[in-house]
Amino acid sequence: MGRDRPYLISMSDKVNLAAKLALFSDHFSPRTVATLNDYKVDVVKIQGEFVWHAHADTDDFFLVLKGQLEIELRDRTVVLEEGEVFVVPRGVEHCPRARREAHVLLIEPLGTVNTGDAAGSELTAAEQMI
Amino acid sequence: MGRDRPYLISMSDKVNLAAKLALFSDHFSPRTVATLNDYKVDVVKIQGEFVWHAHADTDDFFLVLKGQLEIELRDRTVVLEEGEVFVVPRGVEHCPRARREAHVLLIEPLGTVNTGDAAGSELTAAEQMI
Repeated sequence: MGRDRPYLISMSDKVNLAAKLALFSDHFSPRTVATLNDYKVDVVKIQGEFVWHAHADTDDFFLVLKGQLEIELRDRTVVLEEGEVFVVPRGVEHCPRARREAHVLLIEPLGTVNTGDAAGSELTAAEQMI
Repeated sequence: MGRDRPYLISMSDKVNLAAKLALFSDHFSPRTVATLNDYKVDVVKIQGEFVWHAHADTDDFFLVLKGQLEIELRDRTVVLEEGEVFVVPRGVEHCPRARREAHVLLIEPLGTVNTGDAAGSELTAAEQMI
C-alpha cells in the first residue's frame, strides 16, 4: 500500500451508510467507510455546535443523510436538509452545527484533520476506519 | 480558473440532489452538480445496461440515491440499494445496470470519461454542469 492509500478496503465490500452509522453514537467523530483514490469517505453524527475552522488546502464536502445540518459561515448560515450537498471552499471559515442529531457524509483528502486550522481543539478526532 | 477547476460553483449554492435530478430524464448522462477540489460530483439516472469499461487512473465512487443499481464485475455482481456505496477500484472492469430507473451520485476526478477505456462508445457523454 502506498502512502496515499493507508486503508485497504476489500473490493468485495459495499457499504451501507445507515448500518455504519448504527455502529457508533458519539458526535463530531467521523468514521471512514471507504476510500476513493487519496480521499476518505466518512460518516459522522453531528449534534450541537462544532468549532470554527477552515481547511487551507482543501474544499470540504457535506451531504446530509438524515436530519438538518447548519453550516455557519461568517456572513450567513447554509441550512442543509436530507439529500442536500454543500461544498465549503478551501480557506473559508465555517462552523457546522445541528440542533438535533444529523447524519452526514463527508468527503475529504486522507489526512485532513476534522478541525482544520483549529487542530488541537478538544473536538479534533483521529481518523478511524469502521 | 485553473485547468483543474473548469467549473465555477458559487459558494452560495447548496445543492438539492433530487431537485437536480428532476431537471433531466435521459439515462447514462451524468450532470455535474458540484466540484470538490479537482473532483466532480455528478448525479445520473441509470436504466438498462451501460457498457463494460474500466478507469485506468481512478477509483469510481457510486452512491445510490434512489432505486437499485447493479454493478457487474467480471466475477460477480454488486447489488446496491438506496444509501449504499461501492467504490470500483481503478483498473477494474465493471458494467453498471438497473432494471428500473435508479438515481446515483458519482464522484470522480474532473475530466474522467464516463465510459473509461470504452470511450467512443455511443454512451460516452460530455461533462455537463447543471
